[in-house]
Amino acid sequence: MALISLSRRLRRTPFSEGVEAAGVKAYTVYNRMLLPTVFESVEADYRHLKKHVQVWDVSCERQVEIRGPDAGKLIQMLTPRDLRGMMPGQCYYVPIVDETGGMLNDPVAVKLSEDRFWISIADSDLLFWVKGIANGYRLDVLVDEPDVSPLAVQGPKAEDLLARVFGEGIRNIRFFRFGVFQFQGRDLVIARSGYSKQGGFELYVEGADLGMPLWNALFEAGADLEVRAGCPNLIERIEGGLLSYGNDMTDDNTPHECGLGRFCNTNTAIGCVGRDALLRVAKEGPVRQIRPIEIHGDKVPPCDQLWPIVDGDQHVGNVSSAAWSPDFNTNVAIGMVRMTHWTVGTEVDVITPDGVRPATVFEAFWA
Amino acid sequence: MALISLSRRLRRTPFSEGVEAAGVKAYTVYNRMLLPTVFESVEADYRHLKKHVQVWDVSCERQVEIRGPDAGKLIQMLTPRDLRGMMPGQCYYVPIVDETGGMLNDPVAVKLSEDRFWISIADSDLLFWVKGIANGYRLDVLVDEPDVSPLAVQGPKAEDLLARVFGEGIRNIRFFRFGVFQFQGRDLVIARSGYSKQGGFELYVEGADLGMPLWNALFEAGADLEVRAGCPNLIERIEGGLLSYGNDMTDDNTPHECGLGRFCNTNTAIGCVGRDALLRVAKEGPVRQIRPIEIHGDKVPPCDQLWPIVDGDQHVGNVSSAAWSPDFNTNVAIGMVRMTHWTVGTEVDVITPDGVRPATVFEAFWA
Repeated sequence: MALISLSRRLRRTPFSEGVEAAGVKAYTVYNRMLLPTVFESVEADYRHLKKHVQVWDVSCERQVEIRGPDAGKLIQMLTPRDLRGMMPGQCYYVPIVDETGGMLNDPVAVKLSEDRFWISIADSDLLFWVKGIANGYRLDVLVDEPDVSPLAVQGPKAEDLLARVFGEGIRNIRFFRFGVFQFQGRDLVIARSGYSKQGGFELYVEGADLGMPLWNALFEAGADLEVRAGCPNLIERIEGGLLSYGNDMTDDNTPHECGLGRFCNTNTAIGCVGRDALLRVAKEGPVRQIRPIEIHGDKVPPCDQLWPIVDGDQHVGNVSSAAWSPDFNTNVAIGMVRMTHWTVGTEVDVITPDGVRPATVFEAFWA
Repeated sequence: MALISLSRRLRRTPFSEGVEAAGVKAYTVYNRMLLPTVFESVEADYRHLKKHVQVWDVSCERQVEIRGPDAGKLIQMLTPRDLRGMMPGQCYYVPIVDETGGMLNDPVAVKLSEDRFWISIADSDLLFWVKGIANGYRLDVLVDEPDVSPLAVQGPKAEDLLARVFGEGIRNIRFFRFGVFQFQGRDLVIARSGYSKQGGFELYVEGADLGMPLWNALFEAGADLEVRAGCPNLIERIEGGLLSYGNDMTDDNTPHECGLGRFCNTNTAIGCVGRDALLRVAKEGPVRQIRPIEIHGDKVPPCDQLWPIVDGDQHVGNVSSAAWSPDFNTNVAIGMVRMTHWTVGTEVDVITPDGVRPATVFEAFWA
């Protein structure tokens, strides 16, 4: 790890005070905002996440708010997923593509009402693309970044913790649905979602002033649940096959290459600006695709650049994320592999900074 | 300072190997790319920059390339600066605004030919806005991020160093002009520009494979000039009034608020999508504006969030960047101040994390 110089440009969040008091050890920068990466250690955080409950400052999932008569039309222009069936109260994972079908972001869209959406973004200025399209097509919408900072509550005890703070109604929220709850007399959108496979919720905190009161209320209510400050965990998210935009995919990739074909309805997603470009790949399939990769041997070093996947002299793909998994007792990894080598069980080599390692295209993500 | 977790998402550059070998001590993240911030110390780097010559890895100034018959039309849509007089071979500093006149970036545009531009961006995904506008208005252009990584050579001996590597022709490049030079048989655009007031050049390195050979050639040629690896220096850039997008201005600000009115020709910049929004502010002037602020007393702490500028109970502005200046023996700062308090010599208070400090609206940037 290296040191980072702080500045206003790397934005603090409404929860930064709590994060610092909890002893954050390292950050990454995500949407020009500080995102914690380690509290105790990546492995200790991982074990705790799988057993208890954690509160995550994911304010860096900035929102793009789209409001107005053309909101529904605009959001369909952004994605090859057919949104006609989406109802207010639902969250949809929506690959966002440009006119070439290249991925610009992979956010969760939250439909607040027929003419109002939040798009909870991964690490790219999706706001600029949405504003550009809205302006260029002269759509009747307002597009901006509201003062909304998501706080995730993740882990097997997440539901119990939230029920103590918001009431038993929390238990009725279905996966990728949201409800509106009250905190200190203010409305709070709470969705059953989050960037882990341990279950949990995302709270869309509207108004920075609510940040620390809510943070403190969760920690007070959860003391006997062993609630801790946490963050998206590298090991757990690779085990679960949760992709990271910028790491595992970029605007060079189509959703199909990313294994997101099931979120694309390219034929019926009329209006999507990338539809023409994607029709052929939707029909024929991609020539490379994301796969779980097991890297054999000892713990691999941190993966901070693409590691080539090779078969002899042939460069057949790249590993983009990797970590040692204590639970599966192996190195779990995510890579993009060419069709010739993506069959389950294919033996390949991965060139890591510490040397060449044997690896196998694995059958499915681990968790 | 805090620790940063590295990942592929925070991109390495063609010069990272050289930067690491030179003993980089800290980074910031800029356009999802690593940008060094400290080598020896911010103050030692500052003294060296003012006396000798430094090589800066500013690959994070990513390029937005615009090519095609509508390239000139598109670039004029982005900025209130009138570009009709811009000739191939020229660089223009161009405030980029959205349809509300809010600043989206403050890059340098490089006109390669009548139908081809590079926009060398500050820290935001300007690419997304440009692609959105190009798509929405159905312009006949290609827009993408090419494999071009700028390397800056800054300091009083910069010209001598480059003359040794590229020949005496370097000396004829005028300020904000560029020439095309050869390195290892490949063309290299070299402009007299850079993010310091010490003079120097920016080399637009096309092709990542050229990175380390060029880096090494500069260090070999400059050994007796005391050439060192360096980076944009916080103290020097505040002394010189070099603004930082994301720190000193955001999309909340118009160019006029940022003191960039001299780069706006709003009346004649026909086609600029923000023109209507800016016409009034161009005529009447802004109600707040960026000013140099001298903060009295001892060295201030690192400025990682806005520091309120107050006059008694009145909140009259914010400091966005601040540092102790050894040469001027005071704390130099950049702030946005309301009209009621922006007159030179106005005494105000600045609320820093270490307490309230007396401060003065200064007459001009220091260098």
